[in-house]
Amino acid sequence: MSDDLNFHMTPEAFRQAGKEMVDWIADYYESVEEKPVIANVRPGEIRATLPTNPPQKGEPFSQIQKDIDQLILPGITNWQSPNFFAYFPSNTSFPSILGEMLSAGLGVQGMVWKTSPACTELETHVMDWLVHMLGLPEFFLSSSDGGGVIQDTASSAVLCAMLAARERITHNQANKQGVPPHLVAYTSTQAHSSVQKAARIAGIGDENIRLIDVDDAFAMRPEALLEAINSDKSQGKTPFFVSVTTGTTSSMAMDPIEQVGQVLSSEIWLHVDAAMAGSAAVCPEFRDMHNGIERADSYCFNPHKWLLTNFDCSCLFVKDRDALIRSLSILPEYLRTPENEAGAIDYRDWQIPLGRRFRALKLWFVIRHYGIEGLQTHIRQHIELAKHFEEWVSDSNEFVLVAPRSLNTVCFAHRKGNAVTESILQKVNESGKLYASHTVLNGTFTIRMVVGQRTTERRHIQAAWDLFESAALEIAPNGY
Amino acid sequence: MSDDLNFHMTPEAFRQAGKEMVDWIADYYESVEEKPVIANVRPGEIRATLPTNPPQKGEPFSQIQKDIDQLILPGITNWQSPNFFAYFPSNTSFPSILGEMLSAGLGVQGMVWKTSPACTELETHVMDWLVHMLGLPEFFLSSSDGGGVIQDTASSAVLCAMLAARERITHNQANKQGVPPHLVAYTSTQAHSSVQKAARIAGIGDENIRLIDVDDAFAMRPEALLEAINSDKSQGKTPFFVSVTTGTTSSMAMDPIEQVGQVLSSEIWLHVDAAMAGSAAVCPEFRDMHNGIERADSYCFNPHKWLLTNFDCSCLFVKDRDALIRSLSILPEYLRTPENEAGAIDYRDWQIPLGRRFRALKLWFVIRHYGIEGLQTHIRQHIELAKHFEEWVSDSNEFVLVAPRSLNTVCFAHRKGNAVTESILQKVNESGKLYASHTVLNGTFTIRMVVGQRTTERRHIQAAWDLFESAALEIAPNGY
Repeated sequence: MSDDLNFHMTPEAFRQAGKEMVDWIADYYESVEEKPVIANVRPGEIRATLPTNPPQKGEPFSQIQKDIDQLILPGITNWQSPNFFAYFPSNTSFPSILGEMLSAGLGVQGMVWKTSPACTELETHVMDWLVHMLGLPEFFLSSSDGGGVIQDTASSAVLCAMLAARERITHNQANKQGVPPHLVAYTSTQAHSSVQKAARIAGIGDENIRLIDVDDAFAMRPEALLEAINSDKSQGKTPFFVSVTTGTTSSMAMDPIEQVGQVLSSEIWLHVDAAMAGSAAVCPEFRDMHNGIERADSYCFNPHKWLLTNFDCSCLFVKDRDALIRSLSILPEYLRTPENEAGAIDYRDWQIPLGRRFRALKLWFVIRHYGIEGLQTHIRQHIELAKHFEEWVSDSNEFVLVAPRSLNTVCFAHRKGNAVTESILQKVNESGKLYASHTVLNGTFTIRMVVGQRTTERRHIQAAWDLFESAALEIAPNGY
Repeated sequence: MSDDLNFHMTPEAFRQAGKEMVDWIADYYESVEEKPVIANVRPGEIRATLPTNPPQKGEPFSQIQKDIDQLILPGITNWQSPNFFAYFPSNTSFPSILGEMLSAGLGVQGMVWKTSPACTELETHVMDWLVHMLGLPEFFLSSSDGGGVIQDTASSAVLCAMLAARERITHNQANKQGVPPHLVAYTSTQAHSSVQKAARIAGIGDENIRLIDVDDAFAMRPEALLEAINSDKSQGKTPFFVSVTTGTTSSMAMDPIEQVGQVLSSEIWLHVDAAMAGSAAVCPEFRDMHNGIERADSYCFNPHKWLLTNFDCSCLFVKDRDALIRSLSILPEYLRTPENEAGAIDYRDWQIPLGRRFRALKLWFVIRHYGIEGLQTHIRQHIELAKHFEEWVSDSNEFVLVAPRSLNTVCFAHRKGNAVTESILQKVNESGKLYASHTVLNGTFTIRMVVGQRTTERRHIQAAWDLFESAALEIAPNGY
């Protein structure tokens, strides 16, 4: 055997290809506004352009670079376009991309403290920063009994919270014997599907999750929650977990954490899912959505949605970290370390997977590049833009608000009903000039306009509104 | 409100900082061999160098760059050092880093086909490539009833497989009603802790997972499995899931898939966890470890361990994709798309989280850069190196093999017993010249020497062996 390693890319070749990739990315951002937002392809079209078989021999990187433009870009829906208003923003920023580059370059795996102390400690540190930046309770700080951890998504975060709650209420017997049939979880009809998915995964089951009724603003009704809890209790069930949503996926509705907390006895775990809206709490004027957060056992928000940090980066905070760790820790011999036994944080015990990337880097870069003030400006600009859009809808003869605007989200529909609204959305999306998605609120097919991309300016939302108006005129020419 | 976006990093500034980051990464790889492999810090030391509070105003990126070297690097355990022999390799390569850069730059979120068709279709395509590259059964191809999906880790993969099995055996009643108490899962005493963790998460529980005895080579004994299954059946239990390991974490032992398959009735889901060893199947001469794979319902291996692809990238293949999707799919209105209803793949239904990064890019880059032959050479070189090390242990008067060498993993101990072996390992690791980790096999404290880093050459393992020998001479000077 020879030690011939020359089939690997050399550092010199990487320097060249890497710098070309940096330019490619910068070029992409400088031109993404002109690209159709939604990929204009049919299912199977991208695959049809790819060779059936993997190459027997390696190919030059220049060929791969060419194929990015020719084969991949046509199939990209441009999330980072200033005209992307669909789903939730999932924005990013150049400092965050640099953080991802460094994380990929270092290639460390931070499953336990010892496998890269900086990976663990920087994460703990920025999570503590975020507690202060969002005005969250101090019991979420690592210096208290709680602490924060970066998860991939809010789906995994709510699953971890539910597992911690399951083990707390069963005194860790569910981990030992399986899940008893009497546990019941609660969330609202407007909650994200991930809560129900978590209940399935955790062995609770659809029949043991109650979707609580909401009010006119699509926020959970605390009295309906109390009623459901009492009804379950009277039937011998054990309410153990409530997930409230600060900014629902459909309409950015805010469940009243305080009033919900008031109807809960202390053994019930309260999880606050602020995946979408939480980032807005960097501005003190938007923190009222967190009123009552002192009752929460866990809290989650996603910097990868609205805080200029690449997907994936979902921040989960727990009040009692031991409750989380007890529910997720298994310590085989090959993972024992003296530092762990002396109390160093091993984040593998705070999550579903074992391994983990160095995701704190991108968050650290973002916070340092922007500073608190930069992040505040970013949030305020988006909310101002959404206010303009809301005004245009309010003043319109064709469209109507389906829900009150909340932060950066405007939910609206055409006055002539679902079929017209759906046609308008389809026409606008097919133009390639923007991408908005829909939901159904109280039976009304609703267009969701979410202002969240880094480069979105007033001219983009103005153009979006013009598009909706002209599509309305074309599809329903008689107006109101 | 002004549309002043100049608090964001400009594309020009990103071009500069990005190219400097590329050079930093190349420099890192050119110097990593000289760095201590294990970070020489105590818990809390890195945090103590970081400012208590986040910055109010943004900072120049040049300051952040400086802090990478001064504050972060001292806390890095250098996984990508050629002298890293601990845990599993978790290697990477320049093409993979370029793939991560592009994924971060594009910033797409591929939860459903429509949100970036190329993200879904390239993933399906490279997963099909891998079926051919590893010589796996054709029922894992997307053109059959099965298919492949990239997960974050093998922990999540085995959880998904177990959930699919749970729903298949209960006819989807566990998702509806919760988990019945009679389900039992099986794996070996040497299996990765993730199987037990999955059983806890999925509501099966420790008392309903059987850790089956192993033979002298630490491989599962099929007759012991059969005995356990029969015993459970006779007590009214329902065996539903078996996870065999192709390359255990402790000693790279190979459970006999074929013989295990022969004792299983068809309703029991067979999962093959080849997280560590699977990559070796790119070489036909190592595929005998997969003998009997035709009986498997699911199979997982991690390109992020040994196939030059950045963490995270774990490939899960299932024989019946509908079984997986039925167990994980919830379709709220805001995620409905016509393409999904027409049968396009929405990978969100193949995994625990909802969102997903464009991880297929790095895998595509790696396969194309190396070609099948390059990846084969890479695997063969590592196994040759491990063979040399094995010979040195065999010929030694001080050390003894604790398990047969398997692929790239050599398990050895000092003849004078656990205390001496442990002292030797500690001394060698503290030198900073290499990092090896340990396990306990049949009560023997065992050093694991895993050859898996991209740049490891013969001179590195020679130096490693010299280090172990001189530490042995110092700690147990009288030899054998």
